Amino acid sequence: MTPIPDRALAEALALATDLFARLATATADPPGVTRASYGEGEMIAQRILTEAAQGLGLDVTTDAIGTLRMVLPGRDRSLPAVVMGSHLDSVPHGGNFDGAAGPIIGVAIAAALRAMGHVPQRDLLILGIRAEEMCWFPAHYLGSRALFGLLPKQAPDTLRRVDTGRTLAEHMADQGLDPTPIREGRALLDPAHIACFIEPHIEQGPVLVEEGFPVAVVSGIRGSLRYPQAKALGAHAHAGAVPRRHRRDAAMATVRLIATLDDRWARLESAGADLVCTTGILATDPAHHTSTKIPGVVRFSLDIRSLDAALLAELDGWLTEEAARIGAARGVSFDFGPPTHAAPALMDPGLRALLMRSAAAAGVPAREMASGAGHDCATFAGLGVPSVMLFLRNEHGSHNPDEALDMADVGAGLAVLVPAVREKLA
Amino acid sequence: MTPIPDRALAEALALATDLFARLATATADPPGVTRASYGEGEMIAQRILTEAAQGLGLDVTTDAIGTLRMVLPGRDRSLPAVVMGSHLDSVPHGGNFDGAAGPIIGVAIAAALRAMGHVPQRDLLILGIRAEEMCWFPAHYLGSRALFGLLPKQAPDTLRRVDTGRTLAEHMADQGLDPTPIREGRALLDPAHIACFIEPHIEQGPVLVEEGFPVAVVSGIRGSLRYPQAKALGAHAHAGAVPRRHRRDAAMATVRLIATLDDRWARLESAGADLVCTTGILATDPAHHTSTKIPGVVRFSLDIRSLDAALLAELDGWLTEEAARIGAARGVSFDFGPPTHAAPALMDPGLRALLMRSAAAAGVPAREMASGAGHDCATFAGLGVPSVMLFLRNEHGSHNPDEALDMADVGAGLAVLVPAVREKLA
Repeated sequence: MTPIPDRALAEALALATDLFARLATATADPPGVTRASYGEGEMIAQRILTEAAQGLGLDVTTDAIGTLRMVLPGRDRSLPAVVMGSHLDSVPHGGNFDGAAGPIIGVAIAAALRAMGHVPQRDLLILGIRAEEMCWFPAHYLGSRALFGLLPKQAPDTLRRVDTGRTLAEHMADQGLDPTPIREGRALLDPAHIACFIEPHIEQGPVLVEEGFPVAVVSGIRGSLRYPQAKALGAHAHAGAVPRRHRRDAAMATVRLIATLDDRWARLESAGADLVCTTGILATDPAHHTSTKIPGVVRFSLDIRSLDAALLAELDGWLTEEAARIGAARGVSFDFGPPTHAAPALMDPGLRALLMRSAAAAGVPAREMASGAGHDCATFAGLGVPSVMLFLRNEHGSHNPDEALDMADVGAGLAVLVPAVREKLA
Repeated sequence: MTPIPDRALAEALALATDLFARLATATADPPGVTRASYGEGEMIAQRILTEAAQGLGLDVTTDAIGTLRMVLPGRDRSLPAVVMGSHLDSVPHGGNFDGAAGPIIGVAIAAALRAMGHVPQRDLLILGIRAEEMCWFPAHYLGSRALFGLLPKQAPDTLRRVDTGRTLAEHMADQGLDPTPIREGRALLDPAHIACFIEPHIEQGPVLVEEGFPVAVVSGIRGSLRYPQAKALGAHAHAGAVPRRHRRDAAMATVRLIATLDDRWARLESAGADLVCTTGILATDPAHHTSTKIPGVVRFSLDIRSLDAALLAELDGWLTEEAARIGAARGVSFDFGPPTHAAPALMDPGLRALLMRSAAAAGVPAREMASGAGHDCATFAGLGVPSVMLFLRNEHGSHNPDEALDMADVGAGLAVLVPAVREKLA
């Protein structure tokens, strides 16, 4: 792997540091930043990135749906491009790094290559993707799926932004954008013209901080088995006056189901399976619950994620059986409600190996790990594009103003990525 | 046991049937009835009972705090009396039978004795007790504890009715009653002058309906170990991005604690222990919970009841240890909050045997069972008065408009109680 001059890496890091600072100031909404999908903050972020990319002499355009495209042109423009990037929107009062780290590091890599005077064989395309945070429009990977014509055709007219109540089409029109490609299911980027996709992103969990790695190569994006609106239905009754065998206790039945899942999770993890299980919502009915009444209704959610699609499918069937067994024993019926499942997206083994090799060569401690959160990268991987993510160490999780990405770790990320991207670009 | 003429039992049942019907009509508040503590419905109920008792020639008075006292005088007025009765208030839109069955059956028993021309050796005192339903004034057994000077002295001025916000003293003044005895902690009834207390009451659970018994002799009133405002404190985090070992999942920790309690309950019950356990409130934070977030806070309640005070004390210590163990393993701290415990009240073995014998003699199928709900009878038993309750079969639980007490089961109750009360009165 060709070593990269320190000066080029230093220039790249200086640019990234400057861009993060400018972005934080320009989209500040204390506490934190707000960059709404198809809103003002996202536009401001695009302008800051555009200026920086133009300053490097990149070829900058915006497509019909507003994706920012910054190209370092290759010697042979007909070859499939190396594509990098991530989204530029944030949650309200979120952190500065979730999403933005992707396009900023992409532009910084272009700066390093420029500083080296390297003109690659193929294009480096850096994307500022729209609308990834589901808190604005309730759709997974809105921006990247729209880019590939994968959104439902009615989405521009049926998806409404949660804060404004206005449609996606209306918000796009505000910015002079055109929902027609989405309505026609038309792709604005051809997967066949993408050599690979690389998405740098902050880690949203505590693993790298607690284990002392500045970066991790993502092995895959976990798929999910999700029932956000499950219910247990039993019968309200007096807490003191009903013996165990006569109870139809929705809370106790739900507790047993979740405890059974937790037991199975522990066994599967000991056996080496990739799995996380969460009940984020667990709620007796606030209008009727009281400490002296057996609850007749409990609402709860199940969120089970794994890299292993077969395991998720098996757990889905098993959960249905366990719910039937526990429900029958306790006079409670479970209704899991509509699922919102997502398939796992495995990262490309060649790209994973390349990044691990590059980290070793650069002397950057790195591990491999699964991503529990969804990312635009799943859209690319789902289309068969060889894809990979690099996680950067980040404190305090994400989706909150306390996200903390140390610029030294951005430097470590650049030290891993610049040589790897250069090798893919050739 | 002296057999009671059918005619006397029929007269008693006719009177009870009439009184239940009059009470339902006069305190109707669709759906159901409303007889607020120290409110209009409770007064109406007292007037209906007063008329009926006066019609039987009973000696009817109301004491300073408003307890209705109806006396069938005995030959020797100096002997300790046989006392019967229960409360006359109801929950809002409640059923017609919870409470009222006690004084009505008491008066019906007096009617049977009158019909037989029997003048007992000692007084039969039938009480229409005030304010038992905690939904009005937040105090256990307000009326019966006031009767024995057991309320806190400040209660008339600090207890406020939940619906009006006015004090107990103000509500008493509305009815020309005098809170002075309560303020002085003065008893209006001398436990030493009570031979025994017998409280007929509807069963508030499904046991008698499901097992086909018209009546049950209560073995004791369960004590409780109650933590209505318990909390588990962990840390909010991303549902997908945090591995099992790094989680501080308040919901999963709470689920494990409750499941552990449920396991222990199952084992204790198999071993013959009297126990019921309920988590009526189980709630992630509605302002922050979502299916994709590990919950950092869960509120929950624990309500554990048993006839066995030693078992309750042991479970209290065990729960604290389990919470510490589960909390340590999962990075979650439990705060059980303020307890509202109550001691069990055991019913008098002699009275229990008397009622079971009387049921057998009358050919009424009867079983013994614990009362899971609290009753005024616990106040009497707590003072060392030999006490017992007779449960009458009732459908659909209590505290709701669907309470259903079949008059045939009132007849069965009278067939058990009249000879037993007659024996105690002699």
